[in-house]
Amino acid sequence: MSEKLTPEQIAAHEAAEQARRVYLPPGPPVESYLRQAQALVPELRSYPQAPIAIVEPRPNPAAPLRFDMSPSGDVAMLASRCWRTGESFTVDFGGHRAGFLSFRLVPAGGMPDSPVRLRLTFGEVPTDVAEPLHPYRGWLSEAWLQEEIVTIDDLPQTVQLPRRYAFRYVKVEVIAASSRFGVSFAEVTAHEVTSAIGVPERLPEGLPDWCDRVDAVAQATLRSCLQTCFEDGPRRDRRLWVGDLRLQALASYETYRANDVVKRCLYLFAGLTRSDGLVNGCVYERPVPTYADTVTFDYAALYNVTLQEYVLATGDLATGQDLWPVAKRQLELLCAAVGDDGLFVDTGATWCFIDWSRSLERSTAIQGVLIFALRRSWMLATMLGRAAEVAHYPDQIARLVAAARAHLLDPASGLFLSGPARQLSCASQAWMVLAGVPESADQARVALRQVMASPDAVKPVTPYLYHYIVEAMVACGMNDEALELIRQYWGGMVEAGADTFWEVYDPEEPLSSPYGDIHINSYCHAWSCTPTYFIRSMLRDGHLKV
Amino acid sequence: MSEKLTPEQIAAHEAAEQARRVYLPPGPPVESYLRQAQALVPELRSYPQAPIAIVEPRPNPAAPLRFDMSPSGDVAMLASRCWRTGESFTVDFGGHRAGFLSFRLVPAGGMPDSPVRLRLTFGEVPTDVAEPLHPYRGWLSEAWLQEEIVTIDDLPQTVQLPRRYAFRYVKVEVIAASSRFGVSFAEVTAHEVTSAIGVPERLPEGLPDWCDRVDAVAQATLRSCLQTCFEDGPRRDRRLWVGDLRLQALASYETYRANDVVKRCLYLFAGLTRSDGLVNGCVYERPVPTYADTVTFDYAALYNVTLQEYVLATGDLATGQDLWPVAKRQLELLCAAVGDDGLFVDTGATWCFIDWSRSLERSTAIQGVLIFALRRSWMLATMLGRAAEVAHYPDQIARLVAAARAHLLDPASGLFLSGPARQLSCASQAWMVLAGVPESADQARVALRQVMASPDAVKPVTPYLYHYIVEAMVACGMNDEALELIRQYWGGMVEAGADTFWEVYDPEEPLSSPYGDIHINSYCHAWSCTPTYFIRSMLRDGHLKV
Repeated sequence: MSEKLTPEQIAAHEAAEQARRVYLPPGPPVESYLRQAQALVPELRSYPQAPIAIVEPRPNPAAPLRFDMSPSGDVAMLASRCWRTGESFTVDFGGHRAGFLSFRLVPAGGMPDSPVRLRLTFGEVPTDVAEPLHPYRGWLSEAWLQEEIVTIDDLPQTVQLPRRYAFRYVKVEVIAASSRFGVSFAEVTAHEVTSAIGVPERLPEGLPDWCDRVDAVAQATLRSCLQTCFEDGPRRDRRLWVGDLRLQALASYETYRANDVVKRCLYLFAGLTRSDGLVNGCVYERPVPTYADTVTFDYAALYNVTLQEYVLATGDLATGQDLWPVAKRQLELLCAAVGDDGLFVDTGATWCFIDWSRSLERSTAIQGVLIFALRRSWMLATMLGRAAEVAHYPDQIARLVAAARAHLLDPASGLFLSGPARQLSCASQAWMVLAGVPESADQARVALRQVMASPDAVKPVTPYLYHYIVEAMVACGMNDEALELIRQYWGGMVEAGADTFWEVYDPEEPLSSPYGDIHINSYCHAWSCTPTYFIRSMLRDGHLKV
Repeated sequence: MSEKLTPEQIAAHEAAEQARRVYLPPGPPVESYLRQAQALVPELRSYPQAPIAIVEPRPNPAAPLRFDMSPSGDVAMLASRCWRTGESFTVDFGGHRAGFLSFRLVPAGGMPDSPVRLRLTFGEVPTDVAEPLHPYRGWLSEAWLQEEIVTIDDLPQTVQLPRRYAFRYVKVEVIAASSRFGVSFAEVTAHEVTSAIGVPERLPEGLPDWCDRVDAVAQATLRSCLQTCFEDGPRRDRRLWVGDLRLQALASYETYRANDVVKRCLYLFAGLTRSDGLVNGCVYERPVPTYADTVTFDYAALYNVTLQEYVLATGDLATGQDLWPVAKRQLELLCAAVGDDGLFVDTGATWCFIDWSRSLERSTAIQGVLIFALRRSWMLATMLGRAAEVAHYPDQIARLVAAARAHLLDPASGLFLSGPARQLSCASQAWMVLAGVPESADQARVALRQVMASPDAVKPVTPYLYHYIVEAMVACGMNDEALELIRQYWGGMVEAGADTFWEVYDPEEPLSSPYGDIHINSYCHAWSCTPTYFIRSMLRDGHLKV
């Protein structure tokens, strides 16, 4: 995080935020929608794979995450060596996997006269296995830390770890065997699971190297998140969020084309709204689809955008018709938060996400999200032949745009400001541009260029908001700068060793966490996967040339 | 332990013992014997049971194990309360169970937005759950400590712990949920498993109260150990040892009559001998029956005694005939260790167990075990009509008895001494008496009474050796003293709160452990279960009157 807060400050902030939010109870599940969703559960396929190396973390002060992995032995040693109490090793599967782990535990060096206890730590990045996870200092549940202690009674035995993990590295520690024996690890296998099918089309030859690398890492990110729904991260929260869904869907249309999973997700949200019909920020799939009492103003608005883009990408008008009432209801509810002056003000009554930045004033960005959603919903209504039902949308858009121009734009600088303190942020510019508030593309470019160059502006801390900056740049024709930002930001993660794109990446402070402890960060996060969308759609649109 | 050794001294002692032992390789499994054994695997039945109370340990300096359990809440609270991160409870199942645990984990107080991590600690006695298990100081594998950390991803969910445990108490700690929710525990259930069938005949009315209580605890001990074989302890080692088997078989003939399990165990040992044919001290059942490279001189001798008693108790001469070659081979091998002078000397070449006492000189006791086994093997040969094959046994017995009388008996005191230092011990007297070395019952009684009264004699530390003292007392007509010793020793454990009899109990030092940490002791141990045998056989023989 750019803001240096102590874990205690962050926790206090979070508690205060929770306290002032008013939650409405969930509505009854809409069974017809949920039946549709459940009929679309994709098949998960499992891809077994052996580790490629035994590695050990080596401190590297120059590396953003402070450690490199270096080979420390041949994988054949796993099965040939006798690993005794107190010994440990780390295996490397060569890339990020969401999946299971199994191995055959074989007694070695003597008769196994006791159970064997192992600690297994799963790492997406070297930091996860290079440093002790305890004492844990974050404010998210410690249960997210990917570690297991298992005790095996009878040897030899094939051990299948009970849960799904997100990992490239697995550290295995023999906590206890007896002094009379040790163990060998045969058939160590990662069973990657994903519902992604096939391999996306290759990029054409001749693109800069970084394009191919960033594209591949983005695809790997999407692949690990593509489970029975679009998860936000296979490590955490393993859950479907609207904000992640939209970005995954965009990447998916260009790569795996998991259209039925997008559809399933749209139905899950539709089937599990709040009692007033507002779409939830996230839902749970298991044990049964369940509402998750976390509404997010901007995510509810983006539900409509996701639906519109789905219908556009697939031509599936039937789904559009079926879910149209949900979309219409979102804007009824959200527009009620707009004042007589045509402005949205973030009072804290509903969580406005936009980014994890703590100091960000979100009113202007939300104004933008709302206009963006109104415009896209109008397009959807038109596609579905239901424009008459929402004939007031164009007036509403015009009213909100006019209010933004009148009250949020600083005429002198051409920048959009937010809140009583007139805060300058990247978020405000990006969303105003996407909302089409600037009167011209030139004005939009001026705002974006100025804010990116301003040392005082509140900067993004998540790839999620970086996405919207890039999307805004593309929207106003800043194609080269958009590509350069992708190269710098996502390419920076690749340079830092990312196999999949991270939930949080602040190039200035790569060890920051919105949760108070980097060991709880997700290092394969859906909302970071859109470079593959940008690269491929810009190629198609002629904005990126070979 | 009576001897105050530091854990380091004990570990050094153990390492030295291991080093000087010569192990012969295992022989090939005798398939015909193993087939018989595997055909006799008894059915395990499962008995579900709800906890009777929520309890908490309270320090009680007067209690041998330093803690009492006192009720601290109604079990209904498990399901009705919201248990949050950092909270814990201990449930009491009202008695010792070998079995599994399940419960339904239900979210409470909010939406479950993270996995839940629990630590479960299973206690046979209050000490197991009242004190931290770490840092563990014992020299047996820490993996025996009965604790599990489990992480549950999706709630509500029925959780079945993966392993079998030995417990009356279960401490459950919510290590981590998120700050937004807690959990409730519905349907908390112990699934006791045992192959014991039915309920043993009740003792007649009118016996002293302690008899009924000691008998009941002995039965509970046997029941928990009665699994697919006679385990030494359901907590540790969960394994079949010859020394435990003999005592369990004696108790079983008087109670559960699990004769086919005795038979199975005799065949397991016969099928898994050392390459020279010596029966192993213990064997493993899983994953497949396996030899356990731990030969014990006295246990090999007691294999013959167990077989003889099995044939006598069941009339199963066919099994006797089938296993007779194994019995014969034991004495060929063991008698080879007797010198020309007719004496066995413990050189350390083969482990002589007798008791866990560290300072015990075992030569004289082993001389007694050998004579005892020779006498019983001769009886077996006679029953089987094969006396001609071992016609030299009576001469051998006479030679060993004469040597013992000549060299081990101190004529002045009437006590049997052991080793170059002429050590006085209870073990020597008990085994000399059981071997019939004293020239009269009077001489036997003198030896036993004197040693029990002698403050300098090496005393037993395990119920196993206490059993042989009682057995020796009964053998020479000291019935009242035998009963009094049972009342004092095993009754002492009942007074100390035992639900099942312990592996180790030194009334002077109830916190002692042969392994350096009492948390690794087994508190339900087969070799302690014979009071039910003594009480019932003495009733039948008229030595205990109502």
